[in-house]
Amino acid sequence: MVIEQTDTDRGPRDRLLTAAADLVHAYSYRAVGVQAICDRAGVKKGSFYHFFPSKQALILAVLEENWESFTRDVLDPIFGGGAPPNERIAALFEFAFASHTEIKRQTGHVRGCPFGSLAAEASTLEEPLRARLLRVFEDWTAYLRDALSDAQASGALRDGIDVDATAWGLLSCLQGLLLISKTANDTSIIPRVLEEVVAHLWREA
Amino acid sequence: MVIEQTDTDRGPRDRLLTAAADLVHAYSYRAVGVQAICDRAGVKKGSFYHFFPSKQALILAVLEENWESFTRDVLDPIFGGGAPPNERIAALFEFAFASHTEIKRQTGHVRGCPFGSLAAEASTLEEPLRARLLRVFEDWTAYLRDALSDAQASGALRDGIDVDATAWGLLSCLQGLLLISKTANDTSIIPRVLEEVVAHLWREA
Repeated sequence: MVIEQTDTDRGPRDRLLTAAADLVHAYSYRAVGVQAICDRAGVKKGSFYHFFPSKQALILAVLEENWESFTRDVLDPIFGGGAPPNERIAALFEFAFASHTEIKRQTGHVRGCPFGSLAAEASTLEEPLRARLLRVFEDWTAYLRDALSDAQASGALRDGIDVDATAWGLLSCLQGLLLISKTANDTSIIPRVLEEVVAHLWREA
Repeated sequence: MVIEQTDTDRGPRDRLLTAAADLVHAYSYRAVGVQAICDRAGVKKGSFYHFFPSKQALILAVLEENWESFTRDVLDPIFGGGAPPNERIAALFEFAFASHTEIKRQTGHVRGCPFGSLAAEASTLEEPLRARLLRVFEDWTAYLRDALSDAQASGALRDGIDVDATAWGLLSCLQGLLLISKTANDTSIIPRVLEEVVAHLWREA
């Protein structure tokens, strides 16, 4: 999500969260320092430590907020809307394609998944970030697993599919597509792979 | 790959390459400075710039060497050995599982794919790294595409599969699995997803 935050009516803590989310997504966790986050947020560096004991603590708060808004605005509507399971799963990939294509249009860069990019960068270095990001992936997989379970119950899925492993496979595929899209600075691989890989799960394919 | 390099008989340029490859894989690109690389390599910092104009130039040389050894030691034997196409593709995922499980055993951390982790961290920041890593992914996908083309020619693949998109889908899935394994610090998802996702490509599945 690209958010240019200039609204100084919001409190400094909120402005720090928004600035950090945008800068880390645009660059990387290590590339962005506390000073740059404060500059973007219009908050004095001395005030930073009133709100957060460290950059890591700020980023943990960003993860909470990002995950909450992603579930509320994207996952709950897609997976809770009563569409057939195959359409729910396709809609997630279509959202990824549309939203990351829009970020490229606005910024010139495919930035990749903010959760996935941070996990790749920080998992061996900062244990609290790794643990929080693992919960993100587990909770994300639960949406996919529920859709696959519904499809299995209605007979729409091919026989003999392990829905938990397949849900992890779908999230792996989506994360890999976002990584490759970031590396290519081009999102066009997402709909092409959606057609090929995801379709083969369904009986009617 | 975990390489503890202590052999001072190798030249300083080689020792810098080995030290940088290991440290960046263990931590991240930004987390590792030139001084730390020199310390690990047993090379004076003043000598570093005799061999490489920048850390980025060193890492580009590491990428060349890593890709050359990965193709020679892993991809060429797996994909050039005359095994049936489905066994070639499965062998790549099995290699990933075995090698990353061994890294966890040796170091305590699943470090993820050195190419994928660097791509996630640096693609929006350092254009030469992004461009080189895209070529890595393109060349890697060619091995998968050739195996799928052989399978299509022999009638082993399900009808109507787009082999290029499917090859990218398989690399996406593998990259995502390595990212999730790094985040979980556990590789057990790899063989579970291999069974489920990859098997559905084949006619006999």
